[in-house]
Amino acid sequence: MKIGILGLGLIGGSLGYDLRSQGHHILGISRRESTCQRAIALGSVNEASVNMSLLATAEVVFICTPIGLIVPQFKQLIEHLSAATIVTDVGSVKAPIVQAISPLWQNFIGGHPMAGTADSGIEAAQRDLFLGRPYVLTPDTTTPTTAISVLEEIVRSLGANIYYCQPEQHDRAVSWISHLPVMVSASLIAACMDETDLEVLQLAQNLASSGFRDTSRVGGGNPELGVMMAQYNRQALLGSLQEYRHNLDELINLIEQENWKALETKLQSTQQARPDFVE
Amino acid sequence: MKIGILGLGLIGGSLGYDLRSQGHHILGISRRESTCQRAIALGSVNEASVNMSLLATAEVVFICTPIGLIVPQFKQLIEHLSAATIVTDVGSVKAPIVQAISPLWQNFIGGHPMAGTADSGIEAAQRDLFLGRPYVLTPDTTTPTTAISVLEEIVRSLGANIYYCQPEQHDRAVSWISHLPVMVSASLIAACMDETDLEVLQLAQNLASSGFRDTSRVGGGNPELGVMMAQYNRQALLGSLQEYRHNLDELINLIEQENWKALETKLQSTQQARPDFVE
Repeated sequence: MKIGILGLGLIGGSLGYDLRSQGHHILGISRRESTCQRAIALGSVNEASVNMSLLATAEVVFICTPIGLIVPQFKQLIEHLSAATIVTDVGSVKAPIVQAISPLWQNFIGGHPMAGTADSGIEAAQRDLFLGRPYVLTPDTTTPTTAISVLEEIVRSLGANIYYCQPEQHDRAVSWISHLPVMVSASLIAACMDETDLEVLQLAQNLASSGFRDTSRVGGGNPELGVMMAQYNRQALLGSLQEYRHNLDELINLIEQENWKALETKLQSTQQARPDFVE
Repeated sequence: MKIGILGLGLIGGSLGYDLRSQGHHILGISRRESTCQRAIALGSVNEASVNMSLLATAEVVFICTPIGLIVPQFKQLIEHLSAATIVTDVGSVKAPIVQAISPLWQNFIGGHPMAGTADSGIEAAQRDLFLGRPYVLTPDTTTPTTAISVLEEIVRSLGANIYYCQPEQHDRAVSWISHLPVMVSASLIAACMDETDLEVLQLAQNLASSGFRDTSRVGGGNPELGVMMAQYNRQALLGSLQEYRHNLDELINLIEQENWKALETKLQSTQQARPDFVE
């Protein structure tokens, strides 16, 4: 099958490796000629171009640009495609993308592979990136079943675990387990920075260990990524943040009231619930 | 030197291993005869007894009981000690302990080795547990310098990094980097549990990955330990929680106002600050 990949970064490049190794013919598009050449040299794609017309013969196209470029790039892309072409994206927020693209393209299916590394760019691309990882697909009731079957088979061939849901459900789920943790964790670092006794601050820095390391990790991550999450998933994230604040206030009240029995019950419930999310 | 260890759990047992291997004669006290026998069999102590009179000849005594028992056990202990005996404890909160014991014992120095594992009890004790770890000591201006020197040399021999500070400074520092993270992290799990759409909740559970795993880890830990932190370090923890809530509200406001520039600046500052705490 001829498969197009628009955007040759970590995700696009990694898709190329896996799909090409299964015998598909991979057509890559990048805005930079140097990236095109590099993707060919690395073996991630068979052909590459800065010109979207290369994708005219593609049967399936993955849009793998940064999230803010997915819709604008798609709008440039459609003039080059035949109507039968199945288009999907890999953006980490789904509702705004699906709302923008679905009315323009019947064979569009929103997608979100939950895989990545701390690095980015074609050099960071790797084989088997999606193996054993979740991959969300958000077709709607009007999506042709053939398109769903074709995409599902490709995604399954990556070794990913497929989840189907509505775009809004996806966005709420990732706001809980991915976007809310970033804000919770960043607030922890910000609060510590507010300590006014410099001896205490320095002592805290010296004593910080695995508990602080883990809880602060995602709050010390890429700021642009954090802003992107908030920007594209604003509504769901604000809902999660309000619920979080409510739970935080409840804990504060229990400690103020020295209600140790209720605090223990609360901490028992979080201890019991965590394994439902992660081992 | 004859060194007493009151409480033969993870910390007391591990201290025994290291100090005994340096040639000290270790006298252990446990409330259970079976623990005494086990500590001798494992080689953590030279002698052990359920009777505190065994410590009559000890030159230094480490109180290694759970935090709630430190002061009551010390009060039982003093009738058996000579006034020259140096007493220290390993409790994770310092001000309430130092305030209770210092007026009763001139040669008392509060201590807190920042080391541990997820396990507890004499079976969990291990050699070199304190190697390269922080160890806080909180003598005050009236503590005899001889006592400080003797304890410092013992702690240094464990390979620990010693930090001196006031008890209140210690308690504020650990509220930032140890106790606040537990409450922040528990609130995250509790908030996610409040999702009312069961399909979204299940999806969140299926999609949760390393970000959620790390941010939720300490909030899914031992509930009794969490309550203990809140109970004994209540004042400092409430201060940290208020500052945290303030920073969380600021983030929520920036997202509500779609002030992406200010949000990015905030997330840049937390990204920059984190390496001051942990590599």
